[in-house]
Amino acid sequence: MTLALDSAAQDLLFREARTANTFTDEPVTDGQVQAIYDLVKYAPTAFNQQPLRVVLVRSAEARERLVGHMAEGNRPKTATAPLVAILAADNEFHEELPTQFPHFPQAKDVFFGERPVREKSAALNASLQVGYFIIGIRAAGLAAGPMTGFDADGINKEFFPEGDHSVLAVVNIGKPGTDAWFPRSPRLTYDEVVTTV
Amino acid sequence: MTLALDSAAQDLLFREARTANTFTDEPVTDGQVQAIYDLVKYAPTAFNQQPLRVVLVRSAEARERLVGHMAEGNRPKTATAPLVAILAADNEFHEELPTQFPHFPQAKDVFFGERPVREKSAALNASLQVGYFIIGIRAAGLAAGPMTGFDADGINKEFFPEGDHSVLAVVNIGKPGTDAWFPRSPRLTYDEVVTTV
Repeated sequence: MTLALDSAAQDLLFREARTANTFTDEPVTDGQVQAIYDLVKYAPTAFNQQPLRVVLVRSAEARERLVGHMAEGNRPKTATAPLVAILAADNEFHEELPTQFPHFPQAKDVFFGERPVREKSAALNASLQVGYFIIGIRAAGLAAGPMTGFDADGINKEFFPEGDHSVLAVVNIGKPGTDAWFPRSPRLTYDEVVTTV
Repeated sequence: MTLALDSAAQDLLFREARTANTFTDEPVTDGQVQAIYDLVKYAPTAFNQQPLRVVLVRSAEARERLVGHMAEGNRPKTATAPLVAILAADNEFHEELPTQFPHFPQAKDVFFGERPVREKSAALNASLQVGYFIIGIRAAGLAAGPMTGFDADGINKEFFPEGDHSVLAVVNIGKPGTDAWFPRSPRLTYDEVVTTV
């Protein structure tokens, strides 16, 4: 069974792409991040809510603050990657719904008036968008190093002091360096994951 | 700024792909689903935990049970799509870690011994995988119609009576039919989503 997606694209995005643990010194430009965003922004979210927010950690001072909240084992790569991005869910995404979901602007209040409902929806949909963003980084010919080992409360207080965002992942971005990856771990088989009723 | 991914692939996966609301009668085969899974299974999850589980709803009896748990507005398309898949997080994914994360088999107990910790990690990582799966459906030349409007507790009890799975999304899959989509809604601009510190 062949896919519609060409084989080179399959390799670039999935089969040969790997989570990088080391990177070259080559910088990642704002233009590259914009090209990634302008591709993956089209992928779907419920009510077109688009809750993902991205913080590019470019200053040495901000990088140092971020590293302090990372798990020990993630600190060296967070300290040295060409670019580090904080990916977070905006729990106040509903403020944008009147413009982003224009055929039912009341969705803002009817469906998302309650903060706990918004938080749950933002967590799910921004996580989908983290998945899209990782694919987008690979589409740009770059390697992603997504991490979830960090003090989430610490990052939220440090980078989102208004209390309206929840960090989901921190992602190192760049060209893979020497010994960039471990041998690939196994994957569950189709029969272990997919059942039919 | 050009991407490494070729322009046809960009269109197929992101720019021309749309959430379909109607489908043709053409069936979606198990071979197609297997090709999708065997592509997207390589995308990353934390600790290689791969918590996504997929239930293909193929029998008329199961389809009817599912439709009963969907929000009113989602029922007609759930009833008629060529294939409907329930995408869920397996909160007991840690049982697979000794084989899936072989260089640190103790991760099963050291990091994921507590059910609330597992649930949180499974929700995030299976949601990433839902994002990958949607991209994979498009890679197969099919349209995805992901939905989150349903009674989650009802679906969990009906399809996962052992209590170890949490439904995240229900996805219609097929070739787009007539009037398959609404006009595309706007997207947030780069400057609304990405900030630099």
